[in-house]
This record gives sequence, structure tokens and C-alpha cells, in this order.
Amino acid sequence: MKKIILIPDSFKGTMSSKEICSIMEECIRAHYPATEIVSIPVADGGEGTVDSFLTYMGGKKITVIVKDPYMKDMESFYGLINEGNTAIIEMAACAGLPIVGKYLHAEKTTTYGVGQLIVHAAQSGCKKIIVGLGGSATNDLGAGAAAAAGIRFIDKDGVEFVPVGENLSNIVDIDTSGMLPGLKDLKIITMCDIDNPLYGKTGAAYVFAPQKGADSMMVEYLDNQLKAASGVIKRKLGIDISELVGAGAAGGMGGGMVAFFGSKLEMGIEVVLDTVNFDSLLPGSDLVFSGEGKIDDQTLRGKVVIGVARRAKKYGVPLIAVVGDIGDNIESIYEEGVSAIFSINRVAVPFQDAKLRADSDMMLTMDNLMRFLKRIKH
Amino acid sequence: MKKIILIPDSFKGTMSSKEICSIMEECIRAHYPATEIVSIPVADGGEGTVDSFLTYMGGKKITVIVKDPYMKDMESFYGLINEGNTAIIEMAACAGLPIVGKYLHAEKTTTYGVGQLIVHAAQSGCKKIIVGLGGSATNDLGAGAAAAAGIRFIDKDGVEFVPVGENLSNIVDIDTSGMLPGLKDLKIITMCDIDNPLYGKTGAAYVFAPQKGADSMMVEYLDNQLKAASGVIKRKLGIDISELVGAGAAGGMGGGMVAFFGSKLEMGIEVVLDTVNFDSLLPGSDLVFSGEGKIDDQTLRGKVVIGVARRAKKYGVPLIAVVGDIGDNIESIYEEGVSAIFSINRVAVPFQDAKLRADSDMMLTMDNLMRFLKRIKH
Repeated sequence: MKKIILIPDSFKGTMSSKEICSIMEECIRAHYPATEIVSIPVADGGEGTVDSFLTYMGGKKITVIVKDPYMKDMESFYGLINEGNTAIIEMAACAGLPIVGKYLHAEKTTTYGVGQLIVHAAQSGCKKIIVGLGGSATNDLGAGAAAAAGIRFIDKDGVEFVPVGENLSNIVDIDTSGMLPGLKDLKIITMCDIDNPLYGKTGAAYVFAPQKGADSMMVEYLDNQLKAASGVIKRKLGIDISELVGAGAAGGMGGGMVAFFGSKLEMGIEVVLDTVNFDSLLPGSDLVFSGEGKIDDQTLRGKVVIGVARRAKKYGVPLIAVVGDIGDNIESIYEEGVSAIFSINRVAVPFQDAKLRADSDMMLTMDNLMRFLKRIKH
Repeated sequence: MKKIILIPDSFKGTMSSKEICSIMEECIRAHYPATEIVSIPVADGGEGTVDSFLTYMGGKKITVIVKDPYMKDMESFYGLINEGNTAIIEMAACAGLPIVGKYLHAEKTTTYGVGQLIVHAAQSGCKKIIVGLGGSATNDLGAGAAAAAGIRFIDKDGVEFVPVGENLSNIVDIDTSGMLPGLKDLKIITMCDIDNPLYGKTGAAYVFAPQKGADSMMVEYLDNQLKAASGVIKRKLGIDISELVGAGAAGGMGGGMVAFFGSKLEMGIEVVLDTVNFDSLLPGSDLVFSGEGKIDDQTLRGKVVIGVARRAKKYGVPLIAVVGDIGDNIESIYEEGVSAIFSINRVAVPFQDAKLRADSDMMLTMDNLMRFLKRIKH
């Protein structure tokens, strides 16, 4: 064992990717003290994304005063990696649910601060900006962020305003001429792991606004606001996000990143693998460990383990998945490049009990995999 | 992979050892079609012991008419292996709980039929008899079996009788002169996996008689009967079974086998390993798989996995334990020779749900261990 790569997703609600990396590393060290171990805690775009990248890539955390979801000043941050060439922004850092606490109002909150972070990063001289969506308290289609970047939203009286969820339908025109010039030359990538469209029964409002304080009447109202704005965007900017997969992420900011910032939406794991230049790590590696909280036939598409497996397969490196639950009908993962999959469950107890012991269960499972490996591979 | 040995215990209440062997075999075959697989379903002395030995060793099943627990004729059986040199008897075959059904009377049932099986086996010309205890409906100290073999129990009036649980204290003398002569030249081994003494709070009556129909008054009564008989045995035969570990097995038959038949009590797994000549199978084997329903620090001593591990260690063959639950503080198993241990649990559900899916969970776990092995070991 010369080199082992660890690149697990978090186990949602149980262990962070970073914690899992550290447990795996300890177990490997105990049996293979001389092995080179590369730990890549996976960021999913939500809270912790900037720290995840900085942990693995090194770089700088930049602190900025921006607007919070209620347009009050707050201290927020983003990360600069690759010698300042790439900026990492997580929208949760100034528009996330923990910031508003109990003051949940999907109709009144703004992503303006996220736009300020984008502007600050652009002015820092980076060439690429990665924006992580996830955990948002907003439903403003990212219009606040666009306004912060210089895009002007005009109502029927010709008055400029910064739209929030409750008044998106007031937009009658969009003027992009004032957009920060540097932004157009930058590559902007948005990490987006969900499939929801902008509006409709599976859209941003219906699926996510209830956890942002909206009752059923408000959900319907917000849905109509998003739909109306989508029509204006199509007419005025010539961009159709009405059926765009992922447009409904983060209160419609998935759609806004495409429409206002010319960004591409990409699966989080693909962004991570590209950013850490994963393919260059694989040659010479003996083994990759990945994992996630649960694998089943519903969740196979685009998740972390599969994303990692496809690349490991390309380079012929064995990948072992260490997961929480293993669902049924998972046979296709072997074809995707997963060499073998193991559950950390070691006693037959329900999840509420199992999650309390997840770290020691992970340790036992990893320890035994290493024992097996060591005993078999001389 | 030239040769793999499978020697799992049953998962109590879930899967028999034979079923587990067959699942393991199927999973190994799928990845290593040319590997020699040796399947040894482990017998524990209870119901199914004879079939287990016959499955692995080959041999003959001998059918005999003997007395049931209420002295009625019934068809029973024993096994002859090693070209007739070794007989395998399970007491459950004529004194087991399933035979009496709802007619549970620990005080009235006899092991007479077991003695008849022993006599029949001895007369067949075998050189060794293995008697499996377990699952008994009786509490007669094995006095019934002894009577069938020619030992005479005498009461205070000088009258010979066949004692049962309720009148063991009537024994005032024991005459062994009439015992079937051939029996003394035979080696008789008793499979006994429990530690209970003959009488007292952890003895045969207190611990096991309630499941044989005894209420608390009867338990106390039966306990006194066992104690009284133990005194007579000490005085008349010069054998002290009053504190013998395992004497309380099978309604005191553990003690009776020692006192009346000159048998040794041995751990079931040791008897199995000796009988199948396990040590001769190990050289040239690449891997041993064992397992049991649950492993924890309470159950380590003398259980199947540890028994197998100690021998595998001696010959340097890696042993993988595939078990149901893995309890806490099991680190000492690695020193005993277990190379690695894996739980079949793949989803966090309570045991009542987990046991319904044990076979498919076992299959998934074995399949992935073989995938791991194959991918790592080129």
C-alpha cells in the first residue's frame, strides 16, 4: 500500500466528510503507518463547502462585510484557492437558514450578499468562481445577487428595485448593461445537486419554501412569482429557465445563476473532482475509499460514490465504498466502478440508535477492512 | 484461491449452519468458480447434530425403535460415520422438547430412549460414541439412559426402579454391575456447551426446568431431587458431580454422562473439529470463513468462531468471521486468530426486521468480501 485516497461524502446528520476522513486515516495508519494518505473531504455546495476546499487545497479565507437576508450588514467569507485563481463561495455564508434563525420568511429574504461576495471575488483577480448552493433561507431566484452585481430590475413604473420572493412578478424589465464588467470574462460554476425545476409542484416554492417559513397559501403565491419572473427573463434576456433541471435549487438561485451570471450548473462531486484535479491523483494509488450515508437504487445517479467510482474505474484503481445503509438493487454500482461496498452497521438497531454510534461503527468497519487487506495482501 | 473452508455456527433463530454454508458457497463460486470449497456445517449437540455430521462426513443413519420421554415406543435414529467406527447420537432425537409438544412435565419424563440408542450404537461395533445434549424435555439426571444401559437404581425397599425427575431422591443404591459390558471399552464423548452446575440457583432445574413445564414450586422440588441423587452418586460411585461445570446440561444429563457412562464433557466445537479432523484440512487452505449470530465479550469463550480461530492461527490460515451483531470490546478475538470480522447488517433496523432478511444480507456481505478479495488479490 503506497498510496490510498479518501474521498467520502458526509453521512447526513451523522458525520461530516472531514470527520470520516479523519477516522479512516487513523484506521489505515494503525495498519499501514508508511502509506501516503490523501484525504479529500467532499463539499456539496452547502454549509462547510469553503472550509472543505481550503482544508484539502490550502488557500486563503477572505472576510467581507455584506448584506444578510434582511439587508443588514454581516461578516461573511469566501475562499481563494489555486494561488488566487479560483474563488469558492457558499451561499449559506450569508443567505443560509442558520443566519435567520426563527425569522423564516421565504418571501422577504434576499441573496444580495451572495452577489456582493461574487463581486468581491471577481475584483480580487480570480479567473474562476465556484458558487455552492444549498441551505438557503431565500426564494428570490437569485435576483438579489444579480442586483448586487449591477443588474437592474425595473417595475411597471420604470422604477428600479431589488426583487425578493414576494414581488418577483413586479419585474417588467431587466437591464444587464450595468453588470460589473469583469464578471463576464470569468468562468462561473454553480454546484447544484438537485433536479427540481424553477416552479410547479416539484419546483423551488412547493418543495423547499415550507422549511423557509411559507404556509401553503404562501407557497402557491411564491410559485406564481417565480413563474412570472421566468417569463420576463425569457422575453427580455432570451434565456428559457422554465424547464431547466436544477433551476429550483436554493429558492430559484439555480435558475438565477444561469440567467443572470451565465453560469453552468454542475453536480457538486464533479466540481470537487475537477477542482482538486482528482484524475492526476489516481495513477499510483492502490486504493480509494469513498462512502455516503445511504446508497440505494434511487440515489445512485450523480451521488458522490458513483462520481468517484467512474473516475477510479478509468484509471483501474479499486474503490471501496463504506456507507451507512445499503439499500436494495444496487448491483449497477459494481459496473460503475465500485469494487465492493460495506455497511458500517454492526448491530441490528434502528437508525436513531445507530447514528449515535456511527463514528465507532465506522472505525470498526475500516479497521477490519484494513485487517482483511493486510492479512490477504502480503 | 485454491481452497476455502466454511465452518460457521448457526445464527440462532435465523439461519442454520447448513444454510449459511450454502449461501457462502454460492457467493464464492460466483467469483472463484475453480476454488475447492470445504463446507462444514457445525453441530452444537442439539437437534440436527446427526444430520450435520452425516452431511459433511458421509455415513449411515440408523433407525431404531426406542422409548420416548413417556416410555412409549417411537422411531428414533443415530448416525454412524468413519466407516462405522464413530456413532453420533443427539438426545433430542428421543427426549427432545418437540417430541412431547404441549405435554411438558420435567418431573415425569425420561432419557431411557437415549440409553437405548447408546446401547444400540455400542452393539453395532463402533469404537467411539458422541452424545449431543441440548433441547431436552427431561430432568432425570440421565438416570433413565443409565437404566437402559443396565445400571440398576434401588430404592429404600430394595426395589429396582427407573428414576425420573420427581423421584431421584428415592435412590439409595446404584448397582453398575449389570451395565452392558461393551460400553466400558468405548470412548464416550458428550458435547456440552453450557456451564451450569447440576443444582442450585444456576443449576439444571432453576435455569431450564421452567421451559419444560415446571412452576416455581416444582423447580425447587426438582432441584432438591438432583441434589439428593448427587449425594448418593458420590457415596456409592465415588464420583463427585456436585460442582461439575456442565453437569446441569440437559436436565442433569451432563452429570449423568460423567457419573454413569464415564464420559468426558467437551465443547461442541472442539468435538466437531476433532471429528472432522479439521487440523488436516488447514494446510493448503487460503482462507477460512466462520461466523455466529452474535459476538461480544460475554460470548467469546468457547464459542465456534474462537474455537475455529485458534486452530486456523496454529496453521497460519487467515480466518474471516461473518456474524450477525458485533458487540463491544471484541478486540481479543484478533489475538485468538480472527483476521477480521464483518457484520451482515446492511440497514439500520431492529433485530425483528433484520432477521427476516438475514439470508440476503449474508449474501450481500459475502459477495462484497469476495469482490474485495478478488480486486485486491491479483
